[in-house]
Amino acid sequence: MSRTVRVAVAQSGPIQKTDSREHVVARLLEMMKQAAAGKCNIVLFTELALTTFFPRYYEEDRGKMDDWFESGMPNSATRPLFDTARELGIGFSLVFAELTADQHHYNTQILVDTQANIVGRYRKVHLPGHAEYEPERAWQHLEKRYFEPGNLGFPVWRTMGGVMGMCICNDRRWPETFRVMGLQGVELVMLGYNTPTLNSMKPEETAATRMHHNHLCMQAGAYQNACWVAGCAKAGDEDGHDLMAGSCIINPDGEIVALAQSNEDEVIVHDCDLDECAFLKKTTFDFDAHRRIEHYGLISSQTGAVPPPE
Amino acid sequence: MSRTVRVAVAQSGPIQKTDSREHVVARLLEMMKQAAAGKCNIVLFTELALTTFFPRYYEEDRGKMDDWFESGMPNSATRPLFDTARELGIGFSLVFAELTADQHHYNTQILVDTQANIVGRYRKVHLPGHAEYEPERAWQHLEKRYFEPGNLGFPVWRTMGGVMGMCICNDRRWPETFRVMGLQGVELVMLGYNTPTLNSMKPEETAATRMHHNHLCMQAGAYQNACWVAGCAKAGDEDGHDLMAGSCIINPDGEIVALAQSNEDEVIVHDCDLDECAFLKKTTFDFDAHRRIEHYGLISSQTGAVPPPE
Repeated sequence: MSRTVRVAVAQSGPIQKTDSREHVVARLLEMMKQAAAGKCNIVLFTELALTTFFPRYYEEDRGKMDDWFESGMPNSATRPLFDTARELGIGFSLVFAELTADQHHYNTQILVDTQANIVGRYRKVHLPGHAEYEPERAWQHLEKRYFEPGNLGFPVWRTMGGVMGMCICNDRRWPETFRVMGLQGVELVMLGYNTPTLNSMKPEETAATRMHHNHLCMQAGAYQNACWVAGCAKAGDEDGHDLMAGSCIINPDGEIVALAQSNEDEVIVHDCDLDECAFLKKTTFDFDAHRRIEHYGLISSQTGAVPPPE
Repeated sequence: MSRTVRVAVAQSGPIQKTDSREHVVARLLEMMKQAAAGKCNIVLFTELALTTFFPRYYEEDRGKMDDWFESGMPNSATRPLFDTARELGIGFSLVFAELTADQHHYNTQILVDTQANIVGRYRKVHLPGHAEYEPERAWQHLEKRYFEPGNLGFPVWRTMGGVMGMCICNDRRWPETFRVMGLQGVELVMLGYNTPTLNSMKPEETAATRMHHNHLCMQAGAYQNACWVAGCAKAGDEDGHDLMAGSCIINPDGEIVALAQSNEDEVIVHDCDLDECAFLKKTTFDFDAHRRIEHYGLISSQTGAVPPPE
């Protein structure tokens, strides 16, 4: 069996508040068909791929935000994605706001195989932002209000010929995310992001610096765990709020090998040879030979920073 | 008290096997004086700053390698560094092979304050390479033969107006290194490296890719822990083995703000405002608000990678 996975990253342009799920799914289907026509094995969609980035809106009554959530997957609006994927024999990964049967809210990603079976589910662990209205911000970022932190850890799945992992947006800034998957031998990490082009707390921070942060974290995660990373943006102007693009595919050397060029719906493709992970996993990043866990205790025992006394 | 530390990184050009400690120290003194003349508060020297990178040489009888080690610090050869530092009122950090009174061997870094007191000691935790002769390598990398892994963890020190950390060479490739210091509020990490320009196991790996790996790890460590990082190379041709240069100073955004331009002895300088760490430590990387240690257990409990069953 070939160990090369042809990966399509399907960047989304902006999605407006009034856009229906059906309208959005039609855009995703168009990109899925394009990926399948290019003989891709899997197509990665972005974070909150079905809606606008609604955590920018404050609502005192959280229950009123449930319309942004999916209470079943597939559901009537998203079933065409599953049907078309099965028909075309392409896998996909989708991120959406999940409302569970027992009323929990998560920022959730699924991995769907080429027979349209949901084979993996991840729930975003690192929720950025805040839970209450913060007037000092240029705009709100209320992920901690509308979502609970993921309760599934960072699992990996052996499917499509390799070891697959998922994470979402802010997760990529935390090396722990990639390392926990690296310790399970991950070979391809798929992630989506909705990241503002401006910093709501630091207006002088340039878009270039913010894109550098974005790529830096994914590149380091790839290299330091000797895996491929695919990052998929939601880009462009959503209701006056600009989201950065920069969707990319990164090799196990941490080098960007494919990069989106627009702020619109755009598919980028790369043949990811999972066997390319082996060299670094066996040498520089032979964890068994080189890691020294006796000195890592703080990482999993202490949450916040504790500087030495003044 | 000002929170700006003017940091000098004193890259070393090559040191040959026959170069005496006195000869090498004279070169370091020259750079220390240059840094002090530029009103720097501290000068960082590289890994194994007193000798050639001797772990490239195989010696069956390890005891015969003890000549490469320092059994006291300061000693007669290095005392001029301490005397001159005190006289000029400049701190410094030096990395050398340490032979302890009870016959342990470490790759050790010291932090010396502006009164020439040794205020911090770090011993390299992540030893790369191997312990026995490996004929398949283009050259040997016997750090695991001649050194024991450091036994001091990753401490930080409050000195010179800030929270200072140290690590050495291969430590920089491991995000755990920076994170353990980040959890102690580190504001400036000083590290030295002796890194071959070529990969002994992969001759086709380019120098550019290897420099990218070098900078990527330091930049990610800086950004993800909102600290300054100073990296100091030993560069150039040591006995036919080329070492990469690329000494640099990196800000808490993970951006390189000073970069060496040569493969020789060279001093680069930057005013590192430690208060610049505060923004990211309070927002994106407010560890207390955002880290989820309940999902990090594998990092400190499992050394090697364990992929899911085939």
